[in-house]
Amino acid sequence: MKKFFLSSFCTLLLLSSFAQNTDSLFIRRIADEVLTNGQSYEDLRVLTKQVGARLSGSPQMVKAEQWGLRTLQALNPDKAWLQQAMVPHWVRGGTDKAKAFFNSNGKKQSKVLDVIALGNSTGSMQPVTAAVVEVKNFDELAQQKDAVNGKIVFYNYPFNPTIINTFHAYRDAVIYRGAGPGEAAKLGAVGVIIRSMSHGENNAPHTGNTRHADTIKALPSLAVGLQDADWLSQQLQKGPVSVTMQTYGRFLPDTIGHNVIAEIRGSEFPDEYITVGGHLDSWDVGEGAHDDGAGIVQTIEVLRTLKKLGYQPKRSLRFVLFANEENGTRGGHQYAATAKQQGEKHIFALESDNGGFTPRGFNMTGTDDQFEKMKGWLPLLQPYGAATIERGGGGSDIGPLNRTQGTAVAGLMPDSQRYFDLHHSRNDVFEAVNKRELQLGAITMAALIYLIDQHGI
Amino acid sequence: MKKFFLSSFCTLLLLSSFAQNTDSLFIRRIADEVLTNGQSYEDLRVLTKQVGARLSGSPQMVKAEQWGLRTLQALNPDKAWLQQAMVPHWVRGGTDKAKAFFNSNGKKQSKVLDVIALGNSTGSMQPVTAAVVEVKNFDELAQQKDAVNGKIVFYNYPFNPTIINTFHAYRDAVIYRGAGPGEAAKLGAVGVIIRSMSHGENNAPHTGNTRHADTIKALPSLAVGLQDADWLSQQLQKGPVSVTMQTYGRFLPDTIGHNVIAEIRGSEFPDEYITVGGHLDSWDVGEGAHDDGAGIVQTIEVLRTLKKLGYQPKRSLRFVLFANEENGTRGGHQYAATAKQQGEKHIFALESDNGGFTPRGFNMTGTDDQFEKMKGWLPLLQPYGAATIERGGGGSDIGPLNRTQGTAVAGLMPDSQRYFDLHHSRNDVFEAVNKRELQLGAITMAALIYLIDQHGI
Repeated sequence: MKKFFLSSFCTLLLLSSFAQNTDSLFIRRIADEVLTNGQSYEDLRVLTKQVGARLSGSPQMVKAEQWGLRTLQALNPDKAWLQQAMVPHWVRGGTDKAKAFFNSNGKKQSKVLDVIALGNSTGSMQPVTAAVVEVKNFDELAQQKDAVNGKIVFYNYPFNPTIINTFHAYRDAVIYRGAGPGEAAKLGAVGVIIRSMSHGENNAPHTGNTRHADTIKALPSLAVGLQDADWLSQQLQKGPVSVTMQTYGRFLPDTIGHNVIAEIRGSEFPDEYITVGGHLDSWDVGEGAHDDGAGIVQTIEVLRTLKKLGYQPKRSLRFVLFANEENGTRGGHQYAATAKQQGEKHIFALESDNGGFTPRGFNMTGTDDQFEKMKGWLPLLQPYGAATIERGGGGSDIGPLNRTQGTAVAGLMPDSQRYFDLHHSRNDVFEAVNKRELQLGAITMAALIYLIDQHGI
Repeated sequence: MKKFFLSSFCTLLLLSSFAQNTDSLFIRRIADEVLTNGQSYEDLRVLTKQVGARLSGSPQMVKAEQWGLRTLQALNPDKAWLQQAMVPHWVRGGTDKAKAFFNSNGKKQSKVLDVIALGNSTGSMQPVTAAVVEVKNFDELAQQKDAVNGKIVFYNYPFNPTIINTFHAYRDAVIYRGAGPGEAAKLGAVGVIIRSMSHGENNAPHTGNTRHADTIKALPSLAVGLQDADWLSQQLQKGPVSVTMQTYGRFLPDTIGHNVIAEIRGSEFPDEYITVGGHLDSWDVGEGAHDDGAGIVQTIEVLRTLKKLGYQPKRSLRFVLFANEENGTRGGHQYAATAKQQGEKHIFALESDNGGFTPRGFNMTGTDDQFEKMKGWLPLLQPYGAATIERGGGGSDIGPLNRTQGTAVAGLMPDSQRYFDLHHSRNDVFEAVNKRELQLGAITMAALIYLIDQHGI
């Protein structure tokens, strides 16, 4: 009996080692294909240079959807279609402006600031001029609550440089972009300037979403570049500074947007769905290259590579270019709602929306068993850069799947050091993407999708 | 007795876990200091923008040595000095040129090629014109051995894109730069063009060392940018191409160079030396920012940080800015020779000469025990990026220490994907370095030096 167990154990070990070896060989084939014939970099060139920035509701976004559908169809999936979602339609409306006025050596001086209005913010339309009150955080705002009426509140909360993963530093700081304008409005402020969500070495301002209840007065709200933020703070040490700001943002009625979807039907478990995706929309500055052109072209590359290798999945694979991540996540919600409505069982979803940099690993939300199973695959992924897996998160667009039907969700986690140098700014352009780093990300994604298709999760 | 062993074992476990915790806390202090008050990025700005490229024997290299000594002295080590080494003195002598001539639609056409002479190559001085013979590798050269007399040999051996670590792809390809000119000369060729050692997406040519026996005729030898290399290869498919090339390289008599060294004496084992360094010289194009300005300013940052934290090492620490890595390694040889002469016992040396990108781990040459000991520390380093350790190598400048007295040597291994886009080319400039990636490398280096100082190797 003991002998039997021993021999069974050895057989299992052998089988498991055989499976690992088969997996490792197939992943090597994925890598060779991507690194030799990869199309993601050229796809990104087209998306960024021929389409460009593509905010929800913009003509460029329509063009991007058409390009996306055409590009997916050309890869000959079993099916490709547009899934309609109503999306918000915010427009910037003009060129955001701000100028600071101050005294220096007894003379009136002025300085143009490098600014950009926050996404979804409401424009001043007319110039607004007011004295600036700087606060480092909400505690300081509370202390100054009687001093900000009629003033412009300047949130100067810096990224914490000692946090190694810059997405955690972002999470720590972004509350001032999201909730800062609403909190300032409650105290009677007439405008808001925030320090850009970045630790970059340049002065480009970074936009991004802001939000507050409809009952609160909407304030013109700007992000200012880091060098100008430091200058403004230093100038306020010396004496009063007033700023004239002018923005033009407004909402038009919701409009029609689309998730762009391709599917390969599974051969053994066609009713179990695995989704891989990124978001097709971007802010209206730069070219949306890292955010999230990279995730889009990597998603397309996963499809291209699996088709090229003649891979027939066991489960049904979905490749989704999501609509409207940046200012509404309506695409992600629509996708989850439709899945639920149609009784689809989604076992796993993977998103790439953390930049097209060299891969480091994944973050994931799922059960302990699912986490351990993914962790067990890391030795297969480490040769291509993914050495770590972190609990929590996954991606904005696939979060709704997790919340509506408990789908395990994961996000590709590339190296984060360069991301916030360019995120939501004019610096997020094709030239900031390295071809091989982008490809290694696509390899890592294809490998994980393959493993989950083969072994379940 | 069994109980005694058990309790001893538990005590050991506890002590070991206590030590790990102490180490982890000290490394966190290193990280906080570097990320909050780090000087490496500003040091690099000065080295690249105020000194610039600094080939051995050049006035810029003298300026770099003076800057290096001044910068080390300002950090108040126990000792700082210049260690003399005679270095080769190769000069480019002029602007390298090449023009291709070919027929297209029955008309004579020409195209200027983007080229740079190989380091240490001998100039043609006068223009040399000859037909071009393309070979993919030395096997093809052997097949063509009767066809290259009087011709220009064009080595068009590409980087293998499927090799993940690009340093391995470099190792695979660089023989054509090193030995290509010599092999072509043996067959009577009159000039050599090599495909640049890169897989970058631009056309910048990449220089670097070439060498052959003095008995072999020195040929004018150029590297050509990748786009021009592809063009030349395609044009040769269509018909004959001749090239006129002109280069001016020559050697002046050996001249005086210096390793720049700082030292902190050890408190417990002052006669055991630990060295950390990079190389101060660079090729004469670009600014030598990643190669190896990064290693230089990281080395200085390790010293700054340990001093700032009031760290008193057990062993003697040496911080070395090596001379002449690029075209002679005379600095590294001089350092090892002097160490031997003075009976110094060098237990470990660490070099950063693989770019200032986000750290991935180390490579190392040492005994199995030393390798396992370093591997055991990876959990302490992984939070800052270093997750892997690979056997072999270490660094050109510290190799002689290993060969003369068996010193364990290691090299910082940053992510390699972007390095050969810029290595030895005009693209290796300050702007290509990310501040936080550079800092994470310095943290990883300081942490490893700390661990070896504390626990030996």
